Amino acid sequence: MADGFPPFERLALIGIGLIGSSIAHATRRGGLARHIAVHAKSAASRETALRLGLADSVHATAAEAVQGADLIVICTPIGACAAVAQEMGSHLAAGAIVSDVGSVKASVVRDVKPHLPDGVHFVPGHPVAGTEQSGPEAGFADLFDNRWCILTPEAGTDTAATDRVTAWWTAMGARVEVMEPAHHDLVLAITSHVPHLIAYNIVGTASDLETVTRSEVIKFSAGGFRDFTRIAASDPTMWRDVFLNNREAVIEMLGRFTEDLIALQRAIRWGDGDTLFDLFTRTRAIRRGIIDAGQEVPAPDFGRHKPHGDEG
Amino acid sequence: MADGFPPFERLALIGIGLIGSSIAHATRRGGLARHIAVHAKSAASRETALRLGLADSVHATAAEAVQGADLIVICTPIGACAAVAQEMGSHLAAGAIVSDVGSVKASVVRDVKPHLPDGVHFVPGHPVAGTEQSGPEAGFADLFDNRWCILTPEAGTDTAATDRVTAWWTAMGARVEVMEPAHHDLVLAITSHVPHLIAYNIVGTASDLETVTRSEVIKFSAGGFRDFTRIAASDPTMWRDVFLNNREAVIEMLGRFTEDLIALQRAIRWGDGDTLFDLFTRTRAIRRGIIDAGQEVPAPDFGRHKPHGDEG
Repeated sequence: MADGFPPFERLALIGIGLIGSSIAHATRRGGLARHIAVHAKSAASRETALRLGLADSVHATAAEAVQGADLIVICTPIGACAAVAQEMGSHLAAGAIVSDVGSVKASVVRDVKPHLPDGVHFVPGHPVAGTEQSGPEAGFADLFDNRWCILTPEAGTDTAATDRVTAWWTAMGARVEVMEPAHHDLVLAITSHVPHLIAYNIVGTASDLETVTRSEVIKFSAGGFRDFTRIAASDPTMWRDVFLNNREAVIEMLGRFTEDLIALQRAIRWGDGDTLFDLFTRTRAIRRGIIDAGQEVPAPDFGRHKPHGDEG
Repeated sequence: MADGFPPFERLALIGIGLIGSSIAHATRRGGLARHIAVHAKSAASRETALRLGLADSVHATAAEAVQGADLIVICTPIGACAAVAQEMGSHLAAGAIVSDVGSVKASVVRDVKPHLPDGVHFVPGHPVAGTEQSGPEAGFADLFDNRWCILTPEAGTDTAATDRVTAWWTAMGARVEVMEPAHHDLVLAITSHVPHLIAYNIVGTASDLETVTRSEVIKFSAGGFRDFTRIAASDPTMWRDVFLNNREAVIEMLGRFTEDLIALQRAIRWGDGDTLFDLFTRTRAIRRGIIDAGQEVPAPDFGRHKPHGDEG
């Protein structure tokens, strides 16, 4: 058990994909809950959750999973949050804390809050961590180590509930920051949502060319393209829901990205090397900052090149 | 010595950055040249080349370095190729092979060819490999293992010269493909040049926001943004030269990228989830293809997460 963290009696995870299963692993690692109840729609996922030891009990409905739980975490794609909240709302124990892991926060507040009874505390959350893989087998205990988890409780939320969720994430290895939902959605639009969109987009553009074959795109992808395919392999349902639910912030950031890109295109067309060189020099500092902040590995090429060339 | 590869008597490397130094390492590893002569403009780089054992001799001028060499490889940024070729042209030995490693091929042919005397063979090349690091200390022998090297000899080039360069790259671990310079430049525009440009661009866009601080961009970069900072940390001079010298192909591919991105933006604005979902599903296949082709590591998150979380 993590020092000084009194475990939750019963943690209910609604959804057991990459993030839900990683929470289960990290909660087990720290001894942070006496019982983990898992709801998954699919019988196969419930079976996997039991087989991997992620769940002490599995449940075919969210209503059943949340019975007696003191912490409930919605780990579904955000498009499903409203239905989940509606289903489980009347089954929540007084004093329970409801949280989530959604990549958009204003829409989750909009979709979940109305269904929660008085006496239940709502502390929305978003761990900024992940891999391109999905499903209950993709999770691992270290996923949140040294990553940030953003909490967006409304003004007036019980401080003790927010503190408890903060302590739980900290015990799972994460660092916690509190902000307004709207600001979260703006920050994530530029640090996560637009990057995913342009990665998906360039992979789509490359697939559709008639002058360059798909086989050539694959063979020569080590020139840079392959980096983009990683996040373009992320879960389609999750990401569709993100874009549908963070429309304004994504369109705002995308507008700036495109405007800047058109300016670069113009610099290329007119042979303005200084503009290109200045930008290309400036961008190096940001990566150094990310490495210095412990949010990125310092090894060249993400450490793909191992000392003995064992990249498989 | 690599099986059956008779070493070059004297390999002259003009420029000793990431690629030049990796060639030196890989040539040493395979015993592929009896002597490596290195030209670098900077005295510090020449000293480093000697200290690291990359060079048997170092030279302050390209003219001196190429004396008596049977293979000369230009490893400078492509903007310097014309001047290098002009300087060394009259010093080349009859029967020597000249090659290069530039990321654009039509411009290198245009810039180098006119300066080469009759009896010298020109086999332009481009190893599609690299890291975001630069300079003579960044190179390593494994860089080209299982990566593709594209050769673009003109029709009429001595077949024996092309075969010799092919055998050399193969002995350094690479796989070799021959194509037309113009087609190379189109393929690389989509697999390398445009990816670099959009990576540089989004890092620039994120740095310039007034609503999101640079500290927030850094803290929450693990949501996807940090992936882009890797290639946006690449050498500014090299990349400026690439864009100035592959203008038409880059602008063509960039136009398609932007057109597709605007269509996605429209789908987001109008809540067209099916269009998003279809693209996001389609893009997964490309990554699988790249992994199956051995051009990418299969580990989630580029293998950043090590078994014991030692990502530093």
